[in-house]
Parts: sequence; C-alpha cells; structure tokens
Amino acid sequence: MDAERKQVVIVGGGFGGLEAAKALDGVDAAVTLIDRANYHLFQPLLYQVAMAGLSPADIASPIRGILADEPNVRVVLGDVTRVDLESRRIFVGDEPVAYDWLVLAVGAQTSYFGHDAWEAHAPGLKHIEDALEIRRRVLLAFERAEREPDAHARRKLLTFIVIGGGPTGVELAGAIAELGHYVLGRDFRSIDPREAKVVLIEAGPRILPSFSTSLGQSAVEQLQELGAEVRTGLRVVDIDAAGVDLESASSADGEASKRERIDSATVVWAAGVKANGLAQKLGVPTDKQGRVIVEDDCSLPGTPEVFAIGDMARFEEKGNVLPGVSPVAMQQARYVGKIIRWEVESVGRPPREPFSYFDKGSMATIGRSRAIAEARGVKMRGFIAWLAWLFIHIWYLIGFRNRVAVLLTWAWSYLSYKRGARLITSTGWKPESKP
Amino acid sequence: MDAERKQVVIVGGGFGGLEAAKALDGVDAAVTLIDRANYHLFQPLLYQVAMAGLSPADIASPIRGILADEPNVRVVLGDVTRVDLESRRIFVGDEPVAYDWLVLAVGAQTSYFGHDAWEAHAPGLKHIEDALEIRRRVLLAFERAEREPDAHARRKLLTFIVIGGGPTGVELAGAIAELGHYVLGRDFRSIDPREAKVVLIEAGPRILPSFSTSLGQSAVEQLQELGAEVRTGLRVVDIDAAGVDLESASSADGEASKRERIDSATVVWAAGVKANGLAQKLGVPTDKQGRVIVEDDCSLPGTPEVFAIGDMARFEEKGNVLPGVSPVAMQQARYVGKIIRWEVESVGRPPREPFSYFDKGSMATIGRSRAIAEARGVKMRGFIAWLAWLFIHIWYLIGFRNRVAVLLTWAWSYLSYKRGARLITSTGWKPESKP
Repeated sequence: MDAERKQVVIVGGGFGGLEAAKALDGVDAAVTLIDRANYHLFQPLLYQVAMAGLSPADIASPIRGILADEPNVRVVLGDVTRVDLESRRIFVGDEPVAYDWLVLAVGAQTSYFGHDAWEAHAPGLKHIEDALEIRRRVLLAFERAEREPDAHARRKLLTFIVIGGGPTGVELAGAIAELGHYVLGRDFRSIDPREAKVVLIEAGPRILPSFSTSLGQSAVEQLQELGAEVRTGLRVVDIDAAGVDLESASSADGEASKRERIDSATVVWAAGVKANGLAQKLGVPTDKQGRVIVEDDCSLPGTPEVFAIGDMARFEEKGNVLPGVSPVAMQQARYVGKIIRWEVESVGRPPREPFSYFDKGSMATIGRSRAIAEARGVKMRGFIAWLAWLFIHIWYLIGFRNRVAVLLTWAWSYLSYKRGARLITSTGWKPESKP
Repeated sequence: MDAERKQVVIVGGGFGGLEAAKALDGVDAAVTLIDRANYHLFQPLLYQVAMAGLSPADIASPIRGILADEPNVRVVLGDVTRVDLESRRIFVGDEPVAYDWLVLAVGAQTSYFGHDAWEAHAPGLKHIEDALEIRRRVLLAFERAEREPDAHARRKLLTFIVIGGGPTGVELAGAIAELGHYVLGRDFRSIDPREAKVVLIEAGPRILPSFSTSLGQSAVEQLQELGAEVRTGLRVVDIDAAGVDLESASSADGEASKRERIDSATVVWAAGVKANGLAQKLGVPTDKQGRVIVEDDCSLPGTPEVFAIGDMARFEEKGNVLPGVSPVAMQQARYVGKIIRWEVESVGRPPREPFSYFDKGSMATIGRSRAIAEARGVKMRGFIAWLAWLFIHIWYLIGFRNRVAVLLTWAWSYLSYKRGARLITSTGWKPESKP
C-alpha cells in the first residue's frame, strides 16, 4: 500500500459498503473494500433464487467487476476478525490493515432469538447458500410427496410453513404458493401440487406492520387468492424436523394461551435479524438486536473517524429508529462518503451536518403480478403495485447484464409458467458454518 | 402403478435416458424414468459453468418439466441401488419396482485409475457440484494471489494444471487461459491475471487423439495463442495440495524416464472416466472401464428385455468400440425405444436388427471464438469451427428458455469481456460423497 496516501477502509460489499466505495471514486486516498464474499448480493430478490425463479448469478455481481473502473479502490476477499479502534487497524484474518477512516457496513444476519437449534430445521434467507438450501428443501418436499404412499406423511410433505410476517415472509409465502399452484401443476403424476398448503405465521396482531392497515389487509387477501393461509397472533414455541409448535399470544382479557402443532417437513424462518457479530466486538454500546448505537453523523461515539452504516447500526432520527432497508444504508453511505472526501481534501476536521433520511416508501411483492406499495401517502396494490415493484427492482439491480437477464427470465416464466432454475443441488449449507 | 399395463423402467435422465423416454411417448405402457437428480444436465457445456460463463440453470433443465407433456411417463427422484435381473425388479432405495423392459442409461463418472486420494486435490468435471467447485478454486486462486506478498507462493497460485488432453481438458485449459487473459484483466490491483500460467498435461504423444493429426496440431496452436502450455508424453505420478509430480513416458530407445514437479494450487482432472458403479452390480461381464459389454441390439447377454446404452455400455461395431459421446447414447436410445414400442404392440418378440451408429463428426472448443471440428472428412478450425460448435450446442440445448438465455449470456460476455457468474460460493462438494 501507498504509505503517503490516506487510507480509507470499507468493510462489507453490500448496499452500504459498495455505495460508500462509489462515493469515494477519484478521491485522493487509497480505498480498500473488504468482504467475505467476492460478490455483491441484491438481497431484495434473494427469495426468487429460493423459489427457483432466478439463478444466483442473476442477483449477484462480482465486486471487482463493479469497481473495476475505480483505480483508487482495491478489493480484498477476506474475513475481518477484529477492529482495534485505539491503534486504528482492522485485522483481515491475522493480517493488520491500517486506516485513517473506517466505514463498517457488515449488515445483519438471521436471528433465532436464542433458539439456535431451530436453524437446522428452519433456515433463514440471508446468503445465496440459504436460498439454494430453501429451494432444495421445497422442491425435495414435492418429490418426496410424489413417492409417499401414506396420506398423513404426504400431507406433512405438502405443508410449508413460513415464520415471520414481514416483507420477506410475505414474499416467500406468496412464492411457495405460486410454485405449487401454477408452476409445478402438470409435472407430477401421483400428487397434485395445487394441494400444497402454505401457512404464514406472525406473532404480532397483523402482517406487514410497517405498512398501513389497509395495505396489510390487502396483502392478506392477495395471499389468500394464491391459496396461502395467514395466521397472526401465534408465537413459535418450538421447531423440529417434523413441524412447529405454536402458542396463541395471550389475549388482553387474560384468556389462557392455546398450544397448537402444525406438521410440516419444510419450515422457513423470516422472523428476525440481528447485527453481524463484528458489531459486538467493537467495544461500543449496542442495542438488543446487537446494532451499534451511532451518533447523528453515523460515527461511533467518541470515534469520529469510524462510521457504522446500514443494518448493523442503530440510527435514531426524531425518536424513530431507521429501518433495516437498503435505502437507509445507501443514503448513509453517500453521506459518509461525502464527509470523508471533504476531510481528505481539507486541513483539520470541518464540522459535520447530521445525517437525515429521505424515505421514498416501501413495497412488498406477493407472487406473480401481486404486490403492495406505499410511498409518501400514495398506496398501490395488486398488478399496478407489482409493476412498480418490478420496475424499481430491475432498475436498481447492479450490472446491465443482470438487468436484461432477470427481465428476460421473468418474462419467460411469466408467459410460460415454467421455471428454469428448479434444480435440486447440494448447497454446502451447514447451520454451524454461518457467521 | 397400473398393474394391467406393461411396465418400462428407464434408469438415468441423461442424454440416453431422456431420449428413450421421448421415444416411448404415447406407447401403451407405463414408463417410469428414475434419476438421482431432478434435472437433465447438458454436459457438453458444463465446463462453461466451471469457468463462470454460465449458471447451472442455463445448462440444466428439470426432468419433470421436459416430460410434462407425456402423461404415460412418470418421473421418480431416487437412487437405484440394485437390479434383480432374475425377478425383473430394480430397487429405488429399498423399494422394489417391477419392469417388463428395462433401459439402463446411468452414464459414467470420473476415474482416477485407482488413485482415489487424488480426487480431493484434482476434482473432475461430471456434476454441477464439480463445476461449481472448480469455479470456486480457480477464482479463489486469483483472489489469494492478489493478497500474497511472496513471489513463489503467488506463482503457485497463478499456475493452473489441467490433466488430460481430450476435448474436456482442452476446453477447460482454453477457458482458464481466457479467463486470466481477458476476463479478469482489469479487476486486480496487485497481480496481473494475464500472468496466469495454464498447463495442459497429456500422457499420450498428442492431445485430442480422436481427431486427425492436423486438427490436433491446430488445437495446440490455438491453445498457445491463448497463452496455455501443452505438454504431452507426461504421466501423472502423484497429486497433492501443492502441485503435481510427473514422469516423462519412457521413450522407445530405452532412455530413462525423467521426473518433474509443477507447483500449482489448482489442478483439474479430465483424464479418464469409468462406468457408473451400477454397471458393476449387474453380474454381467464388464470391460476395464467398468462398462457393460452389450449385444448388437444393446441388450445384456441372455437378457433381451434389459438394455444398457450410452457411456455405461461397451458397444463394438466392426471392431471399433463406440466412443462415450452423447450422439451414441441418443441414437441407441431411439433404437431401443423403437424395439420396445414394437414389442409392446406385438405378440411375442420379433427378430431385432442390430444397432448401427451414424457418426456425424466431432468438435472441441478452445476458448472464445476458437475451435476445431471434423465431420465426415471435412475439417474446420478457428472462428468458423467455433461458430459451428456454437450453433450445434445451442441447437441441442433442451428448453427454449435455456437456448435464449445461454445465447444472450454469451453475446453479453463476448461483447463485454465480462462474466456475470463469477461467484465464489460454497458448493457442498465432498470427494467421498461422489457416487
């Protein structure tokens, strides 16, 4: 490395880290971006890989390729094990890397709220390997049902449970229902995949609580049109290889809670995330989800040269904690990039304006041609919301080839009701291997 | 299953098995196709998955989807563990399946000629998991080289050895050379991927011995243009994690053979195949490569209702053993399908004409826009051979969506020198897990 130049280190190649690297294009400093994976993952479409609609390469782009035109940015594939705020060094494996500014953007991971044993039976959806594992389990369940003579066992194989009624859970439930009802329809001889039962479980009183009530209700109706069941007010008590134990949330009038069991061979977890483990190792205060509590300039308390952005950070603005969505990470990245550029080019450290989030709205899709969307008071549902969703997601997909490939793949599956990526492959997925 | 109807069982969803199922479309019998995978793999393009040019879904199609329009064909995902020729039953796991006619088309697997320990250091290229593992190793070698300060270690990381000078070996060597020289060119900061050294090792006196001498020489020159080295007359003595030990084949004039060592972090094995293990379990004579020696009607000796076709069978025609290529398997499948159809519809067993192979020619590709092809005396080389190769391979790719997707993906990488599928993911690959 160039000892003369200032060093900026970015950890994480997600929406935040990548946007920070781009914001530092051409700055007179050596920028190093470090990630454990060699690709940027477009997470909003990961459920499509899980549901065999897309291939991993459609939604993932090599980070080196994305940053090839920025000669001041160096990309390192490696695992950041430790940050030494005192000596201003991070460690990639055992190798120290010095920084003048550090941008941490390591994101979040699936959280089982202390029940780590559930992971083996109910994978979450954070990595490509997760998506391929969920794909494998869902497709394999149909295959096993086709060969299963016993009616009860077949029923269990054709019951799919999605836990968590946020956008990811809704997208997964809709997509599994669609897979059974439309895609696999004619492919089997002994079973009718349309008999597949999809149950979406939410502990709270309603799904999609971040949307307005009427849109949440519309999502329920759209899920029901696809044949999925929505169950709210049910808390997960246990998950094993054969199903899920549930308990009704105790009602206000002191009614005793009821236990319930749903047999299912395939359970998917979309109920919670926590910050990546690196956040815990910084020695600064974190919240219940393990997120670093940052200042109003996204920096760590008392450490103005170190920033934490995106899902790993807890940023409070006017009493609201910003949600863990990609626009927050990207806006914070551009803000932080601007600060660093300013400080590289200045003498001393000029005063910083606080970060402010501009909320463009949010959306969730429910299978083919169904969705809800809400932006600054405007509500959309059904086909028009789905078109908006499609347009925005294709637009933000990184890499020209990916956009074209994804659009064509979707056009093909939309018109033909076929899915090319319905491959059952071994995935290298191991619960304990997860970060 | 329908007890009244005659039962035809096909084992294997490769070129042979699938073509046999199609040849039996509408026949008055229940046809069951059994495969361990839920997809048909277009193996001629598997090296493109290994080299990050294509995604698995581009070259693999769900078998159920391909056969959805044939209501008399039932697809079973399962592992055939045993064949009982006496009682006319096969076993899927422990479950017996009775047949009146049986078509075995289980193909071949990588052979290390008794050196199974080499597999861990030099994966072969037969399954999707193999291809993703080779992709992972090749891309990871460049990543590690980028971070490696020691010149010798960097040299080792940037040396790639392909063992076996048949079409697969030539395709892999050409593609790795191309990856280093063109695709990754601008992506790294510390290393120049153009320094990558690719060595193709062949034990025999020349590569591509199934082609004429002049085309083999042309292939050598085309490989050299891409920067790959071709070394013939070198036998592999040992493979470990750090490289390969070689011995020059002893010369005719009794000269002592010389030992040589090439350090390399990435070795790929394309030197040999043997029949799938099921061939050994039939209790009928096999050849040195474990292939079932079949009669001139592709049936097992003394068992006219059981056929073995494709790579698992040794078929001799006029003193020549037919090669292990897909046209042989497909022509045998259509021939066997015709016999079975005839016998289902006849009373008794009419006499059979012997199978005869029509050789349409063969081709091998060497990176982008280079190839050789030979068909009935006509020889092609360079760009025109590559166009012919492209046209034929796209033509035979199963599934409209795959053809369009592959063509567009290639057009994109051809024009942009970019490869979208350059993802390093864990692959679930384990040497001992292989069949």
